[in-house]
Amino acid sequence: MTKIGIIGSQGRMGQAIAAAAEAAGVEVAGGVDKDGDVAALAAKADVLIDFSSPGALEGNLDAAMAAGVPVVIGTTGLEERHHWLIDSAAQNIPVLQTGNTSLGVTLLAHLVREAASRLGEDWDIEIVETHHRMKVDAPSGTALLLGEAAAEGRGIALADNSERGRDGITGKRETGTIGFAALRGGTVAGDHSVLFLSDSERLTLSHMAENRSIFAKGALRAAEWVQGKSAGRYTMPEVLGL
Amino acid sequence: MTKIGIIGSQGRMGQAIAAAAEAAGVEVAGGVDKDGDVAALAAKADVLIDFSSPGALEGNLDAAMAAGVPVVIGTTGLEERHHWLIDSAAQNIPVLQTGNTSLGVTLLAHLVREAASRLGEDWDIEIVETHHRMKVDAPSGTALLLGEAAAEGRGIALADNSERGRDGITGKRETGTIGFAALRGGTVAGDHSVLFLSDSERLTLSHMAENRSIFAKGALRAAEWVQGKSAGRYTMPEVLGL
Amino acid sequence: MTKIGIIGSQGRMGQAIAAAAEAAGVEVAGGVDKDGDVAALAAKADVLIDFSSPGALEGNLDAAMAAGVPVVIGTTGLEERHHWLIDSAAQNIPVLQTGNTSLGVTLLAHLVREAASRLGEDWDIEIVETHHRMKVDAPSGTALLLGEAAAEGRGIALADNSERGRDGITGKRETGTIGFAALRGGTVAGDHSVLFLSDSERLTLSHMAENRSIFAKGALRAAEWVQGKSAGRYTMPEVLGL
Amino acid sequence: MTKIGIIGSQGRMGQAIAAAAEAAGVEVAGGVDKDGDVAALAAKADVLIDFSSPGALEGNLDAAMAAGVPVVIGTTGLEERHHWLIDSAAQNIPVLQTGNTSLGVTLLAHLVREAASRLGEDWDIEIVETHHRMKVDAPSGTALLLGEAAAEGRGIALADNSERGRDGITGKRETGTIGFAALRGGTVAGDHSVLFLSDSERLTLSHMAENRSIFAKGALRAAEWVQGKSAGRYTMPEVLGL
Repeated sequence: MTKIGIIGSQGRMGQAIAAAAEAAGVEVAGGVDKDGDVAALAAKADVLIDFSSPGALEGNLDAAMAAGVPVVIGTTGLEERHHWLIDSAAQNIPVLQTGNTSLGVTLLAHLVREAASRLGEDWDIEIVETHHRMKVDAPSGTALLLGEAAAEGRGIALADNSERGRDGITGKRETGTIGFAALRGGTVAGDHSVLFLSDSERLTLSHMAENRSIFAKGALRAAEWVQGKSAGRYTMPEVLGL
Repeated sequence: MTKIGIIGSQGRMGQAIAAAAEAAGVEVAGGVDKDGDVAALAAKADVLIDFSSPGALEGNLDAAMAAGVPVVIGTTGLEERHHWLIDSAAQNIPVLQTGNTSLGVTLLAHLVREAASRLGEDWDIEIVETHHRMKVDAPSGTALLLGEAAAEGRGIALADNSERGRDGITGKRETGTIGFAALRGGTVAGDHSVLFLSDSERLTLSHMAENRSIFAKGALRAAEWVQGKSAGRYTMPEVLGL
Repeated sequence: MTKIGIIGSQGRMGQAIAAAAEAAGVEVAGGVDKDGDVAALAAKADVLIDFSSPGALEGNLDAAMAAGVPVVIGTTGLEERHHWLIDSAAQNIPVLQTGNTSLGVTLLAHLVREAASRLGEDWDIEIVETHHRMKVDAPSGTALLLGEAAAEGRGIALADNSERGRDGITGKRETGTIGFAALRGGTVAGDHSVLFLSDSERLTLSHMAENRSIFAKGALRAAEWVQGKSAGRYTMPEVLGL
Repeated sequence: MTKIGIIGSQGRMGQAIAAAAEAAGVEVAGGVDKDGDVAALAAKADVLIDFSSPGALEGNLDAAMAAGVPVVIGTTGLEERHHWLIDSAAQNIPVLQTGNTSLGVTLLAHLVREAASRLGEDWDIEIVETHHRMKVDAPSGTALLLGEAAAEGRGIALADNSERGRDGITGKRETGTIGFAALRGGTVAGDHSVLFLSDSERLTLSHMAENRSIFAKGALRAAEWVQGKSAGRYTMPEVLGL
């Protein structure tokens, strides 16, 4: 049976993972937070699950590599250099990085890719998400994951075609771009909608998480799946067989 | 160039088709309504578009067969015996029957089939639609079309697994059923949502028509596509190459 | 401090109330379920909270009257005769009956009444709700509460103007009616929307409960408020000072 | 009968107003656009309706004052100095300025003010709007109008409490602020939602315009109402008796 180690164990997701593990009978080897000893945790865990912060990523990956332990990374707010670190670590250990661990969102991304590949540029794409008042970044990692799926479907690079933080005199909407908007408030666990807007018709693909349990359950499922895999970088659709 | 004949020309869709034809430069050979001479119309049209009523279907198909003219059927409220009539006519002429002629809805049905095939029975399926206050039947033809897509994805028969007109003491929801609900009011051209509801998460796939122009444009596109085809029964996904 | 007695303590709401009471430091005198001794519970509680079943109502009210203890009734599926029982009991003890104990829904009902009083009959009213797969009745008590608010705003009787379970050949929508539709699936704690649909525009007033905690917290607040009141029948808006 | 003069007659709203006037049998004295002769139009009209641009406002008001003709202003993107110009003109002629001329939005603003005044700061307020791809500014004038209504209900100044264009590392949501988000695409005439987000529950008040006819009809109604009034600044709720 898999023994998991939780990095960021006092955060919202860390606590949800511990609760889900208890409910599912999965053993928790331990947890660490800021200034905690990740190396010691890695030594006694079969898989690490990291929902901490981008700044901690490098140290966490080093500890995982030293112990030869696979890692599931759900941390959001990653930048290009973090993805390089992940690619590099994945040459030594199995690493699964994802902006969202739920089955529903993973399928949504699949449907968004499909829709974007079928609909032409006369269908404008907009992504809107809502999260609780404590979230510190925008757009959410899941919104970006969905944007990547839309961009792939269209055969364009998201980085060159994003329109974020629309405010003031923006001019007409540029054809082919993908817009992002973020709402914040209350205790919303995570709502995401991808809109395809054309002449007189609209297609909307949405996901709503009622609470964090689905992400925690998905993270456990990913942890069990990634254990025993060979070194490499993996994704959620692989876990779910999509 | 295709000359179209409109059956049900004074209805809402009939008028929208005439307007769309004028806007697109498509020639209208004429139109008929209740007690009109469909045979005479069939004689001078290249394709018939029928948005009249189920009761008129048999006569319309007879006239089309007599003239050897293809038909696009968008009439809603069809029952099993109407589908037999269509199958029979399709042995002599090309017939395209659809509950919805829009590109967006056709793609939505495709995505619903895909989602239903990937998600297990622990994801309850519900279909809700809203239409204007003049609509006389429920659920809409499009809702049923989406229900068929969901049932296909799941590998079940819709007829045996529908739950319609929920009211009163219903008991717990039966696993594996597909629920339908209908809202009516105002001038709503057509909103449809398919919900997949699971433990703590929801996936919703929706389409909204701002007005009837999209159906009219789609019907014209179907009429042009079906002209020149060999006898047989065709569907919207074929028109759109899905 | 108020000691509460929970009737229906093993039901979903009963468990949520016990959890909320613990979180808020409210003392729970005990709980009963089917065939439990309500009289004994009433003897040791300051207030009873009843989320059991319509069939148990008469016995529960008798026990409360015998002990001279106030009751908060959140049971749904009540019929006219149940309301007579409540009116009768309210001559002896304080009784607060409500279809929904949340602050948000109580305010929503207030806004629906206001909107319905300002908008004429050319704005069709539709109420749609979604609940989890275990719910056995439709429409929900909250949907009916919202329908009552709309009917009051319009100055009509809901019973004579309801349109429920729309299915099949319904004919055109009748002016002045209030339509109801119910979706069921997953673990949805409760979504309610009231739509006002007019020519080319729509107004929608919605409430969503992420989980049952809000109903439990509201029930506790109602219990504390009703304690010490004189005999009579009370409502949620009074608790919230609306 | 009122003869209206349309400033910005070739714009989307200008054209919609001309169409609505024709449908309603209202006489159009004429229309002008950029570099047109507003003075000549004012001389032959009973009321001016201005849906042009902020830059043209001063000249338009001067022409209206010179002719002693009332003005309805629906132009969006106005800044503080434009409001001073309007206040100044309103000392000489009747001026009705509004961010939205529809009955539904005017009522929505009323309900938003009411909700905001009843709900405490633990209910975060967010406003999201969707408009067609040709719109050049964000948030929409209507979103700001709704924001003003929310701020009034709360007794705060919108300018000091707005959160717009959320993107990147934003930090936690600041208590008491009102957030704005804008989606753009397709031919959306105008969707607006005001969300009140609290612990485990959400209240959403929304308006959708299916097309621009409602704004045009509302502008005509405002024009008829403002004609014959004494000098002063007026608002839509007054027109509708709210």
